[in-house]
Amino acid sequence: MKLHGYFRSAASWRVRIALNLKGLPYKTVPHHLRRGEQRAPDYLAINPQGLVPALELGDGTVLTQSLAIIEWLEETRPSPALLPLDAIGRARVRAFALALVADTHPLQNLGVLNQLRERGFSEAAAEQWAADVNANGLAACEALLPRSSAPFCFGASPSLADICLVPQLGNARRFGVDVARFPRLLAKEAACNTLPAFVAAMPARQPDAE
Amino acid sequence: MKLHGYFRSAASWRVRIALNLKGLPYKTVPHHLRRGEQRAPDYLAINPQGLVPALELGDGTVLTQSLAIIEWLEETRPSPALLPLDAIGRARVRAFALALVADTHPLQNLGVLNQLRERGFSEAAAEQWAADVNANGLAACEALLPRSSAPFCFGASPSLADICLVPQLGNARRFGVDVARFPRLLAKEAACNTLPAFVAAMPARQPDAE
Repeated sequence: MKLHGYFRSAASWRVRIALNLKGLPYKTVPHHLRRGEQRAPDYLAINPQGLVPALELGDGTVLTQSLAIIEWLEETRPSPALLPLDAIGRARVRAFALALVADTHPLQNLGVLNQLRERGFSEAAAEQWAADVNANGLAACEALLPRSSAPFCFGASPSLADICLVPQLGNARRFGVDVARFPRLLAKEAACNTLPAFVAAMPARQPDAE
Repeated sequence: MKLHGYFRSAASWRVRIALNLKGLPYKTVPHHLRRGEQRAPDYLAINPQGLVPALELGDGTVLTQSLAIIEWLEETRPSPALLPLDAIGRARVRAFALALVADTHPLQNLGVLNQLRERGFSEAAAEQWAADVNANGLAACEALLPRSSAPFCFGASPSLADICLVPQLGNARRFGVDVARFPRLLAKEAACNTLPAFVAAMPARQPDAE
């Protein structure tokens, strides 16, 4: 499998964690978002949406959208499980993930911040926008997190929730959010960062890291 | 089941369609977003994220996030299926849905448009932002749609893709997008609108419609 991504993209980062947790080797194909490489004709032929990540399978099939890719991984390689076995538990983990994947990350990605700048936001206003979006998303997650002494967001092993949380905390720090306001989330992140699957997925460890 | 929602919320609309397709009766509990009722303490006790929809089950369990709710419905009431049976097909339908649920809708919802206004966007600029976001999202969907003569987005019966498409086309029209640019999507919408499950879910048919 080839993972088309960018070291700093939170959505690519999620898929890297999931592939690592499932023990699946993959080849990294970097596309430099700040240089607009995701809009190059060669890449648009792979993903017409012009976004990373895209997972290219051995037979040339291409899957897009981080959450759809991770659900596909879960369906085709069920172990170790990234979702609970009970339907209500699965709905809760997915809701936590979507609070980041839908309600947070798309509002602060590079393309949207560039759009805001083009429409009159100063650099400081764009950075503040991104910081506020991240802080709101993390506050929602802190509220959605179960009251439990389990090491990970939803239990004794990492789930889709942890996979989405860790990269978003990375973004939040990059935009200057005081993440110490979210001690419960930080405890979950610390548990994740003891696992090689999470460590190997960090942006700084990617071949295209700057 | 009680569906906490708002007649015009595209996310609530998606869940209404899914409940109708599954043949599940539910009670509508409206929360008027323009009056900020989703931030009332009573509602925050139901959904701390302060967003609609929320599905309240008979035992008081509350599920949030439209996509998580629909996945839960699919897992607990598999017939009629809203996702294909093959894993690649499921990934494609989910990717199409996420192009709207994650990359489009959150960028143009009421809360975000209000934030943009508070940060200096004129009314015209906010409306233009929403129109552009909708047009981009629909263009992505047109590209992701399979080349097929099937009546619905991904085959002979409506799927999660159609459930997300129809409300987004409603939003796009509301923001003045020339949806005639997307003839293939309009053909799918027309097929959906022959089905009572889609008709009954339309905003104008809801008890809180204005």
